[in-house]
Amino acid sequence: MTGRCDSVRRSPVNIPSTRGTAGFVATIRPMLSDVECILLEQVAQAPSPLNTMLRQAVVGGKRLRPTVILLLGSLLSGGAERLVQIAAAVETLHVATLIHDDIMDGSPVRRGRETIHVRWSVRDGVLAGDYLLAASAERIARLGDTALMEVFARVLTIVCGGQMAETHPDSGTVRGLDAYRRDIEAKTASMIAGGCEMSAMAAGAARDAVDKAREFGRRLGIAFQMTDDVLDLVGDEQQLGKPRGSDLRQGLLTLPTLLYLEQGKPADTVARVIEDAGERSKETIAAAIEMICASGAVDAAADEACRHADAALAVLSGLGPKQPAETVAILENALRDLVAYAVLRQR
Amino acid sequence: MTGRCDSVRRSPVNIPSTRGTAGFVATIRPMLSDVECILLEQVAQAPSPLNTMLRQAVVGGKRLRPTVILLLGSLLSGGAERLVQIAAAVETLHVATLIHDDIMDGSPVRRGRETIHVRWSVRDGVLAGDYLLAASAERIARLGDTALMEVFARVLTIVCGGQMAETHPDSGTVRGLDAYRRDIEAKTASMIAGGCEMSAMAAGAARDAVDKAREFGRRLGIAFQMTDDVLDLVGDEQQLGKPRGSDLRQGLLTLPTLLYLEQGKPADTVARVIEDAGERSKETIAAAIEMICASGAVDAAADEACRHADAALAVLSGLGPKQPAETVAILENALRDLVAYAVLRQR
Repeated sequence: MTGRCDSVRRSPVNIPSTRGTAGFVATIRPMLSDVECILLEQVAQAPSPLNTMLRQAVVGGKRLRPTVILLLGSLLSGGAERLVQIAAAVETLHVATLIHDDIMDGSPVRRGRETIHVRWSVRDGVLAGDYLLAASAERIARLGDTALMEVFARVLTIVCGGQMAETHPDSGTVRGLDAYRRDIEAKTASMIAGGCEMSAMAAGAARDAVDKAREFGRRLGIAFQMTDDVLDLVGDEQQLGKPRGSDLRQGLLTLPTLLYLEQGKPADTVARVIEDAGERSKETIAAAIEMICASGAVDAAADEACRHADAALAVLSGLGPKQPAETVAILENALRDLVAYAVLRQR
Repeated sequence: MTGRCDSVRRSPVNIPSTRGTAGFVATIRPMLSDVECILLEQVAQAPSPLNTMLRQAVVGGKRLRPTVILLLGSLLSGGAERLVQIAAAVETLHVATLIHDDIMDGSPVRRGRETIHVRWSVRDGVLAGDYLLAASAERIARLGDTALMEVFARVLTIVCGGQMAETHPDSGTVRGLDAYRRDIEAKTASMIAGGCEMSAMAAGAARDAVDKAREFGRRLGIAFQMTDDVLDLVGDEQQLGKPRGSDLRQGLLTLPTLLYLEQGKPADTVARVIEDAGERSKETIAAAIEMICASGAVDAAADEACRHADAALAVLSGLGPKQPAETVAILENALRDLVAYAVLRQR
């Protein structure tokens, strides 16, 4: 990826792509621990055997959303207790949507373990997701700030609309680039944007800073999802926790494949894999991935992710934090690390 | 049912059991129309083809929850606009839970039409329910009153917990009477109670009146659910929109059956139907229903429903409304009609 993501790479802290999340969480570790405790306690309080199912769903996530909410809120001098509650609520909502997404996509495995609807039943999966949706709404409601609740509920509506758009693309045709960009905005970016917005609101930031916080989250979310879609084709299978090309196997067209198709190639293996579910053997999927990589479409997709990461960093520098300069430097660097992590994760 | 439900029958308005909901809605008809418009507009705004699915789910309900919310709120001098919004949000939440319940229970038919997960897919059913959950939360959030939002979110959590308890009865044994009473309280009564509580809060009622409003809704909800469970065994199949004994067919033990089992009968047809899914032919179900009726258990269940209806009416008379005497008389009579309807629906 030499030459790409230049401004991300110019980040003051050098980021080895294998470092994972260790570096940037140091500044907010105590708050992240509190979020973890809340997530586990919340799950333990559920009636049995729901608690067992929810525990499996909740443990082991990357905690990207809590991390960005806590870092951004701290940068804007938000109180720890409220930020922790918002972070816990947004992560809970995220896990709820994962559980329902896995049912909707028929995914058998998540984070290397059988999904709830497979290990238990669809019935339990529906309920587990509903329970976490309710728990996250209740947590935000208890903060006693209707503006926060409104953002939260709006995010929920947008996320559902995005899932519907992905499930039923317009007029039965193959999803195009515009639809892809719109869908990841709704499905992934809106929740991270909403989390950042709530984080800034809870910190008492001015309207302008709240808007910038949301835009930061939106750009970060888009960069993160595009990178996820790149990694699905070229990532390390161990790290992915699933075989490469699982999106293609589901007939789901993401950025690299869509950029490949835009090159107007004649009908080939990629087209066959997309159009015919019977053509999705391990070998044809591997061949299709090879062709998409060779065409430069994977690099182009990674470039697009980096442009959004750059845009996120540009917004960040205009945020006007209220903290002492030294603290700002630490938190800003951590956020830069996070943005870099979002797009420079190991292939 | 002679001799039963005496205080309900002493209601100032005479209620022929076939009258349905026509009588008591007259006083709030304009507001109910507004609720109906909101429900349909909300559905129309959803992306296609979600709008088609949601339309089917939303049309044709009894609107018990909006009706009681509007009547009670009007009795306490609540503003029409807020009451309409609360009523629409609670009905939306109710429909959302029905869609997910139908998936969880594997129900093929609701209100005489194929359920969403059968006509379209489980994927669409999960999403349709999520979308309405989000829409209802957003509607309440927009009212800008965190106390309302907290009640709403709490109801959502309790409803999910109740569904879980019903799905996984304690320690694998057959569900007993105590568990039944606890489950219907969570699954049905909590939402009606919460709706009444929100209605009183929106009307600016004092804490004591808010508590009474919640208790009224709780008792009404219990009476309504118990009557539903009686009607499932002895109701008119055309009115039910499904064959009699569908609970038994699913192995679900409700009040009449549980009261029958409490009589300590030796192993018989009823016990066989309950214990062995292979024994649930049309004939054995009919024989089991016959035995439950003959034992007096159905009448005893109807009695228990009536006692809760009586308790609801007792709470109502202590509500201390702020309206002129004449208006109070009309609204109170309408609420009494509603309670009577809940327990005196046609067998």
